[in-house]
Amino acid sequence: MLRNHSYLIDGSFDQAISVFDRGFSYGDGVFRTMKIRNGLPVSWPFHYQKLVADCAAIGIVCPSAELLMGDLQKLFEKELFSEDLTQVAKIIITRGEGERGYAPPVITVPTRVVIKSSLPQYAESNYDKGVQLHVCDIKLAAQPKLAGIKHLNRLENVLARMEWREEFIFDGLLLDQAGNVIECTMSNVFARFGSELLTPDLSLCGVSGITRQRILGLGGVLGLNVGVKSLTLAQILQADEIIICNSLFGAFQVIQINNKTWPQQDLAVKIRAVVAND
Amino acid sequence: MLRNHSYLIDGSFDQAISVFDRGFSYGDGVFRTMKIRNGLPVSWPFHYQKLVADCAAIGIVCPSAELLMGDLQKLFEKELFSEDLTQVAKIIITRGEGERGYAPPVITVPTRVVIKSSLPQYAESNYDKGVQLHVCDIKLAAQPKLAGIKHLNRLENVLARMEWREEFIFDGLLLDQAGNVIECTMSNVFARFGSELLTPDLSLCGVSGITRQRILGLGGVLGLNVGVKSLTLAQILQADEIIICNSLFGAFQVIQINNKTWPQQDLAVKIRAVVAND
Repeated sequence: MLRNHSYLIDGSFDQAISVFDRGFSYGDGVFRTMKIRNGLPVSWPFHYQKLVADCAAIGIVCPSAELLMGDLQKLFEKELFSEDLTQVAKIIITRGEGERGYAPPVITVPTRVVIKSSLPQYAESNYDKGVQLHVCDIKLAAQPKLAGIKHLNRLENVLARMEWREEFIFDGLLLDQAGNVIECTMSNVFARFGSELLTPDLSLCGVSGITRQRILGLGGVLGLNVGVKSLTLAQILQADEIIICNSLFGAFQVIQINNKTWPQQDLAVKIRAVVAND
Repeated sequence: MLRNHSYLIDGSFDQAISVFDRGFSYGDGVFRTMKIRNGLPVSWPFHYQKLVADCAAIGIVCPSAELLMGDLQKLFEKELFSEDLTQVAKIIITRGEGERGYAPPVITVPTRVVIKSSLPQYAESNYDKGVQLHVCDIKLAAQPKLAGIKHLNRLENVLARMEWREEFIFDGLLLDQAGNVIECTMSNVFARFGSELLTPDLSLCGVSGITRQRILGLGGVLGLNVGVKSLTLAQILQADEIIICNSLFGAFQVIQINNKTWPQQDLAVKIRAVVAND
């Protein structure tokens, strides 16, 4: 068992996952990844609201915010904050244990897991210049009943991420089977066309991240018209500027997709200034 | 933790699943369910071949047949076979443990789980008369890179199975988003039209079970032309006879879907006589 993390399962240290947990059997659960700054979760209300909504979408009653905040305090409280320390919490909620078979038990007790890890060491150049994307060969399947949800059925992301090993590739751009750009394996995408900042429609596939949701409300701050629109790969490649975003790095400028490059610009910097500090 | 099963994880009793197992994090693995008769797995070569193929399809090296047979012997050996005893083994193979993030570690050690449970108590009427199906509201997503594989991303099956609670419904018929019948939540489907016995094409979605594969080779035995063909719900409802199949019950006659009923017929009996005893 890996030792460089610590974690709580249902609020206890040194537990493990039951072989009968439906998260293990069927990927029957949801998760979130968030920054913890000096022991406190960043953007917690956004994360908790999304966790509740994702649980509800598959019929799980999410544990209370109090219970989860208690777990976070217990897991992160022993750190010494002599200087600014940013860590990562991953919260997993599953439907709990069940007998063999897809039908959930009549009474289920969700399993809650909170895992502590360190913040990925993003290269300075990711912040200063930007990142390069691979265009994934695998195309996302359309499933409106699961679209937008950060659930535990992530084999598409795993297969997508296995398509490249080059360290200069930061993330992989995922299209749907109709050829529309949807997202990256671990981030959402926005493309600027003049004064329009557009992000793909996620009603058929993809994960609707909270940073994406927040950027959708930043039109006034950014001086742009921000909206949702289906965009093909060819259209995205014609954008004036592209950024990717998630809860850990905030936003990074995209400087290359395939052979297409973009000059250094500052939308990601502007977005990070807003979403990274709350 | 549930107590009415016993299981082995990597060959050991009393282990549990690591919170870092990618089967738990991402549903990054595959599984099989099979009958164990008097301590020996039924149709083992078919099951093992399918397990290897499913593992390979997502880039996992399947543990050896010897290792898995050793697990099965260890788990089922202590039974007393004073009379015929049929049980169930579920084998789960995951990619193993990994750090946070979709990229698998460079070196992965697959996790192997074998779970013992009792055979479901199917009603006598299921064998004698047949079963009734619900037509599921959720439509399966098309993902050619995962179609046919019995992987651990089974939220669609879970949501489908949550659509009904009536005990007189045995399984749910799943269609794809184009309106083609694909399978049931826990079984495959065959429909007979005169002397043609057809099963849906699974190249875009669905699980290709070993009983389905075996029935596809039974044309001569059954005196029917057996093949694969896309079939809409409307077409299936016009069939002369329908059966569903899996490794545990073999085959059951379908006697009702929605308001459409079928008279008592014997294709399922014929198929059970062939596939249930080897």
